Amino acid sequence: VAKRLEKFKTTIFTQMSMLAIKHGAINLGQGFPNFDGPEFVKEAAIQAIRDGKNQYARGYGIPDLNSAIAARFKKDSGLVVDPETEVTVTSGCTEAIAATILGLINPGDEVILFAPFYDSYEATLSMAGADIKCITLCPPDFAIPINELRSAISKKTRAILMNTPHNPTGKMFTREELNEIASLCIENDVLVFSDEVYDKLAFEMEHISVASLPGMYERTVTLNSLGKTFSLTGWKIGWAIAPPHLTWGVRQAHSFLTFATNTPGQWAAAAALRTPDSYYVELKRDYAAKKQILVEGLKEAGFKVFPSSGTYFVVVDHTPFGLENDIAFCEFLIKEVGVVAIPTSVFYLNPEEGKNIVRFTFCKDEGTLRSAVERMKAKL
Amino acid sequence: VAKRLEKFKTTIFTQMSMLAIKHGAINLGQGFPNFDGPEFVKEAAIQAIRDGKNQYARGYGIPDLNSAIAARFKKDSGLVVDPETEVTVTSGCTEAIAATILGLINPGDEVILFAPFYDSYEATLSMAGADIKCITLCPPDFAIPINELRSAISKKTRAILMNTPHNPTGKMFTREELNEIASLCIENDVLVFSDEVYDKLAFEMEHISVASLPGMYERTVTLNSLGKTFSLTGWKIGWAIAPPHLTWGVRQAHSFLTFATNTPGQWAAAAALRTPDSYYVELKRDYAAKKQILVEGLKEAGFKVFPSSGTYFVVVDHTPFGLENDIAFCEFLIKEVGVVAIPTSVFYLNPEEGKNIVRFTFCKDEGTLRSAVERMKAKL
Ligand SMILES: CSCCC(=O)C(=O)O
Ligand SMILES: CSCCC(=O)C(=O)O
Repeated sequence: VAKRLEKFKTTIFTQMSMLAIKHGAINLGQGFPNFDGPEFVKEAAIQAIRDGKNQYARGYGIPDLNSAIAARFKKDSGLVVDPETEVTVTSGCTEAIAATILGLINPGDEVILFAPFYDSYEATLSMAGADIKCITLCPPDFAIPINELRSAISKKTRAILMNTPHNPTGKMFTREELNEIASLCIENDVLVFSDEVYDKLAFEMEHISVASLPGMYERTVTLNSLGKTFSLTGWKIGWAIAPPHLTWGVRQAHSFLTFATNTPGQWAAAAALRTPDSYYVELKRDYAAKKQILVEGLKEAGFKVFPSSGTYFVVVDHTPFGLENDIAFCEFLIKEVGVVAIPTSVFYLNPEEGKNIVRFTFCKDEGTLRSAVERMKAKL
Repeated sequence: VAKRLEKFKTTIFTQMSMLAIKHGAINLGQGFPNFDGPEFVKEAAIQAIRDGKNQYARGYGIPDLNSAIAARFKKDSGLVVDPETEVTVTSGCTEAIAATILGLINPGDEVILFAPFYDSYEATLSMAGADIKCITLCPPDFAIPINELRSAISKKTRAILMNTPHNPTGKMFTREELNEIASLCIENDVLVFSDEVYDKLAFEMEHISVASLPGMYERTVTLNSLGKTFSLTGWKIGWAIAPPHLTWGVRQAHSFLTFATNTPGQWAAAAALRTPDSYYVELKRDYAAKKQILVEGLKEAGFKVFPSSGTYFVVVDHTPFGLENDIAFCEFLIKEVGVVAIPTSVFYLNPEEGKNIVRFTFCKDEGTLRSAVERMKAKL
């Protein structure tokens, strides 16, 4: 294996999903729903297949989807972007992240990351030869230590890679925090790569797109996807929105990473993004109910639950149960209780920092969430 | 844009497909059929969508597809591989190439490439920081200059990246050439990354999988895809087959490039690969007829056509028409004749070497091929 990937293991999501199957445990680990996406989106994909939309799409996306993404972004952020030069469709948000980093970051560039972080961030920065500076967000509120951020920025800082709403913690960056980040970026000529795949799952406050802050659009790559919002995580349709000079780099890397994205899925994604806003209202209402079941249940089972504003994840402190660390706790939980969670130590440069915290997802039907809660209440 | 991608332009396929649309020209450029894939494969994808197979697949492929790939490879090459540890499903063969290179090549490793080459090879090697050594295959037969290959190999040579049947030339590596390559690789402990996406389009001789040569499996990554063989280029399902120690590197890169591949497409791909061999017989017969129409037509139009043994491409010498180079000729062909071909100079490290050669595809229905030929006979 190449040195750039030497230190990485099989992703924790794969490990845990495989253990879930092996032990017949209820999987509240990896973030995929156990219910299906909307019929109208599935039908749009079926129609596209039937209509013979099965050959290579335009590399950066079918025109219809690029337009739908731009229209959706305008509604969400108020920003008008050109679908032809500022939107790139990718094979999932993971590819959008990889294309952004490999397309825009040079070896030796410093990139700032907030821990805990989705594991692909670190691995992809390593593939690009970036120097990672990591700032840890601490419980209970995972607020940004702004002075630490300020001192982490140097002449070599090229970008901040961030995520709001934030996986795994559910934290949403406040307007105050975002304003601080924006002014530091503008002052120091730093880019932001902002992964906003959970933007429609914002429960406690309104989602703020980083690109919408004054002066930020020109230095921001906004990353998003279909999967989380439309409960079709397996379709792997993502995108990057950025001004033309940044889009150029993203597209160049994308051209040589995958060249183009699944064509019928793109037609369906375009239909999905044109859905009326009532879809999102309902989605959020459904998820709010699920969240309540899980959060109440976790509290009743004895966890210390940290407040989560967005995403379909919550993090908890497992130390009341006396296991030595997050990995030991998750093993115990799978084998003795029959529930899968995700240990978070893998989301830190220094694994010690995550050893008290595990993540649960509530993107499961209510029956499944109730069963998981019952198991934990009975056996923990 | 990052330095690793600075020298690359919009891929020629995108440029030419966009020009085709703009000028209403017949597109014999990019290799995608203008007819549809088999109904049973499309129906399998539709069934998977209806059955709710719409969430994240296992990162390295759904078990059913990994098994079908292994079974197909056994039929084709005689090799028995373990679907669990030696097969990785990717988002098209382009991603398989990227994952192989980023997963196994370190900065400063030398990799040998044969020109002309599919453009992603050079770009991806550049992303990995590899030192490229390029050996040019020359018309009319594009034979390997074996002494040149021998002297290109050094202590720093990590891999040979090759493609048989070969895009753009249609050359197929002979058993003799492959034996020479194999003994050089074994002697010098060099890997082979072998892109064999056109293996089912072998007209003049039998396709030989590099991995099937004695002693080669353990040092070969075999790359393939669904798109070319099943006329579904837009589905973006590819794979890499390699022994476990190489698969590990491929999977690590894949995990962080795309994580997983379109789930319903994987179910359909599994169904496709289980089709009886009669499918391939018919496919080849159809393509042989198309090839004849194009090749005869190109000759009648005045081109010098180089012999092509496999793929759905042929290369020709355009110099009888007096244009200064391949790019000028292709522009003339689009604007004055109404046909799109692909200039090949972009497939060489030294563009001069390709200036007399352009590529046509015959993956179009016979009517389209006849119209293109008529245009060229009338206007050239
Ligand atoms: C490849 S898993 C993608 C992110 C996610 O769903 C998770 O964090 O569980
Ligand atoms: C992305 S184009 C893939 C290869 C091909 O079809 C071509 O060479 O035309």
